[in-house]
Amino acid sequence: MIASLKSHTGLFSLRDIREWISRRNKEVRVNVEQIPFAEMEHWYQDKDGSLHHETGKFFSIEGIRVQTDYPSPCEWKQPIINQPEIGYLGILTKEIDGVLYFLMQAKIEPGNVNHVQLSPTLQATKSNYTQVHGGRKAAYLEYFQNAKPHQIILDQLQSEQGARFLRKRNRNIIIKVDEDVPVLEDFYWLTLGQIKALIQEDNLVNMDTRTVISGIDFTEYIHSDKDLEGMSVFGRDMVASSKLRNGHSSMHEVLSWFTNLKSGYDLTVSETPLNQIAEWECKAYEIVRKDKQYFRILGVRVSIDNREVRSWCQPLVQPMQEGICAFVVKKINGIYHFLVQAKMECGNRDVFELAPTVQCMTGSIYDGTPRPPFTDYVLNAQKEQIVFDTRQSEEGGRFYQEQNRNMLVIADEDFEEKLPPTYCWMTLGQINNFLLYNNYINIQARSLIAAIPYV
Amino acid sequence: MIASLKSHTGLFSLRDIREWISRRNKEVRVNVEQIPFAEMEHWYQDKDGSLHHETGKFFSIEGIRVQTDYPSPCEWKQPIINQPEIGYLGILTKEIDGVLYFLMQAKIEPGNVNHVQLSPTLQATKSNYTQVHGGRKAAYLEYFQNAKPHQIILDQLQSEQGARFLRKRNRNIIIKVDEDVPVLEDFYWLTLGQIKALIQEDNLVNMDTRTVISGIDFTEYIHSDKDLEGMSVFGRDMVASSKLRNGHSSMHEVLSWFTNLKSGYDLTVSETPLNQIAEWECKAYEIVRKDKQYFRILGVRVSIDNREVRSWCQPLVQPMQEGICAFVVKKINGIYHFLVQAKMECGNRDVFELAPTVQCMTGSIYDGTPRPPFTDYVLNAQKEQIVFDTRQSEEGGRFYQEQNRNMLVIADEDFEEKLPPTYCWMTLGQINNFLLYNNYINIQARSLIAAIPYV
Repeated sequence: MIASLKSHTGLFSLRDIREWISRRNKEVRVNVEQIPFAEMEHWYQDKDGSLHHETGKFFSIEGIRVQTDYPSPCEWKQPIINQPEIGYLGILTKEIDGVLYFLMQAKIEPGNVNHVQLSPTLQATKSNYTQVHGGRKAAYLEYFQNAKPHQIILDQLQSEQGARFLRKRNRNIIIKVDEDVPVLEDFYWLTLGQIKALIQEDNLVNMDTRTVISGIDFTEYIHSDKDLEGMSVFGRDMVASSKLRNGHSSMHEVLSWFTNLKSGYDLTVSETPLNQIAEWECKAYEIVRKDKQYFRILGVRVSIDNREVRSWCQPLVQPMQEGICAFVVKKINGIYHFLVQAKMECGNRDVFELAPTVQCMTGSIYDGTPRPPFTDYVLNAQKEQIVFDTRQSEEGGRFYQEQNRNMLVIADEDFEEKLPPTYCWMTLGQINNFLLYNNYINIQARSLIAAIPYV
Repeated sequence: MIASLKSHTGLFSLRDIREWISRRNKEVRVNVEQIPFAEMEHWYQDKDGSLHHETGKFFSIEGIRVQTDYPSPCEWKQPIINQPEIGYLGILTKEIDGVLYFLMQAKIEPGNVNHVQLSPTLQATKSNYTQVHGGRKAAYLEYFQNAKPHQIILDQLQSEQGARFLRKRNRNIIIKVDEDVPVLEDFYWLTLGQIKALIQEDNLVNMDTRTVISGIDFTEYIHSDKDLEGMSVFGRDMVASSKLRNGHSSMHEVLSWFTNLKSGYDLTVSETPLNQIAEWECKAYEIVRKDKQYFRILGVRVSIDNREVRSWCQPLVQPMQEGICAFVVKKINGIYHFLVQAKMECGNRDVFELAPTVQCMTGSIYDGTPRPPFTDYVLNAQKEQIVFDTRQSEEGGRFYQEQNRNMLVIADEDFEEKLPPTYCWMTLGQINNFLLYNNYINIQARSLIAAIPYV
């Protein structure tokens, strides 16, 4: 694992991989045509405005009523994606010449800004892999279904976007195989270092890959000081803090801070007719807020012209603004700490999840309402404070051309000492402890963690 | 903490404490009179048969429909206690002459088989401590509300009985104070060793105390080999396994086993009218299954004749059989492992929780249906295999005279090697990792963990 993390030259160079993705992007023609919901084949709109697949599987777009007392009593209604099935986001790995390689796929998704992005080996909902659509069996599925305990590198249930999905989770899994694996067209073996290097560029590595690799605890594979050679300060601080449960705050203090928030506030979500939400309009072609804020639901027909022509219809969610996700980090007692936010989102399974320091849409930044804490700080960061600053895509199977700015910003000396009550400094080791257990670290935070340059 | 764990002689001897509880039991007169639901003051029965407090607070008894595909597709309806509020189960501690003391209360609950049991310092629902009932403020509440981060010994949200409560959780919290604390009547300072010694006896230590102390990780306080002196094999194995994430299975394997189960099965719970459940009858005095199985709901008037007379009405849940909760333990590679069961219960927040090897009602053992795995093994255990075998009460504020047999049984050489898929051997260190995070270890398992003799 350590060799894989450190290696930017594997079976293919980074240049090969970039060229390969860029070539595939040129070869592929993806046409996404907006159509009325009534014309989406195999989908129907219920009399309450909600959208469903005719099998009752895949996902649906439904109306929910959200009630909470955080930060003070309030209530709103909105559409949400309801996808109760747990799917696989799986990466198959194999050791080749002493280096661990990850089998990555150049995958087309209708919502991607560029058509093709680097995806996990397997990306399949239960409806996909039980072949509800009557299509082909997902490639490599059987490796994951038949994996033996000793093959598991990680296997975690993790949440998805809590503002868009109702309690959705996916199974993030990495397995290691010893036998020879046939490498199908559009699949390539990459090192972990290569995947992480490509995350430093815009929209090359898809969200599913980012969430899966965020769960890798490379510190388990550190056996000597030699393994630390070539590591960045973040890599070394990850190793150092993984050995200590405590940082600026003890793990008990961190857990208590989070328990206090979960105990103090309620979140209640119930069904409501989608076409009777006052702030939203159900039109023939879109479901949209009257003030054009947040997001809208489209009905689309997707045609992909590749080696074979494929075409299907589905709803997609389109954001109305770009968003920003950023961690502010700061050395405390000589070790980097991440400023973690406890964030309530309506689709959370457990009231709050742990989110980046800043996670908001830029729309809400410019409309005159107060900006969320630290947003100004991050947007005004000086060049020398910025570890990375990229645009990363949300999952193109559900979201239409949604990208968020991903930033890691080092706090300067002026950074305020006093934190609002929903913020807490944590070491990478502490974050990593939470990552082992489901529904703690949200997907935006995981996307940023995946990008941390450990070498 | 270590001194407290090892000390059976504190400010009071065990004999003093037993006499004090027994005296209080004699002094107190608790009268629980079964009355028609219609006569419960401040409570009303809705037209669907459900029972509610007139404030809409405290708890209610409602009907639910449960659908799951575990182990195969099935559906049933049942009454359940709906108590969405998170309450405090808090123990205040203080160091006196170098030993940590726990402030325990001799508390009367209407459902207790013996009226008085040893309870946490603070045991209060949100309705209690926001004084919905107009009563007095809970004693010691302000210590917990104002606790500073460095005072926290533990602070965890933990689940309650998943077959009886709909997703209920309580805040299990232990804080340490430095200042002098007034000791009110019925409160006494006990060592951790004394509390654990009293759990070895029947029905002396209430469920709330047991769940709170189950979360104490004493291994954090072990600083030298001297601290290990006087520890039992379980104490030493706890220390040894807390340093290793891995046991018979690695932590990745254990997490993967649990992820696989959570991913593979669904649990859906929806509301249903209580008085239209075919298998249950809503009568004037009780809500009961026609076959008299599982449990029934009573309406009661409680009168407690103590220094002052208090009287109130409430529903209580009465079990129809005694239950059994047991862990089977076995030395693997020289270290004790616990056989943990992944158990689905309808009130679980997250499909499965980790439960004891055996957790069932004895009724289901004798009615001709197959006995759950390992039940026969535990019931037929030889004397020399039994570490403890006691009867412990469920929470007397909700359950009427419910006690379960709590056992820790050492596997002999004949114990079967092959486990059913929902069972997994774990070290105490691995169990302890799960205990830090909410909704993993269920309350029956925590009750057993609290009783493990570490010295």
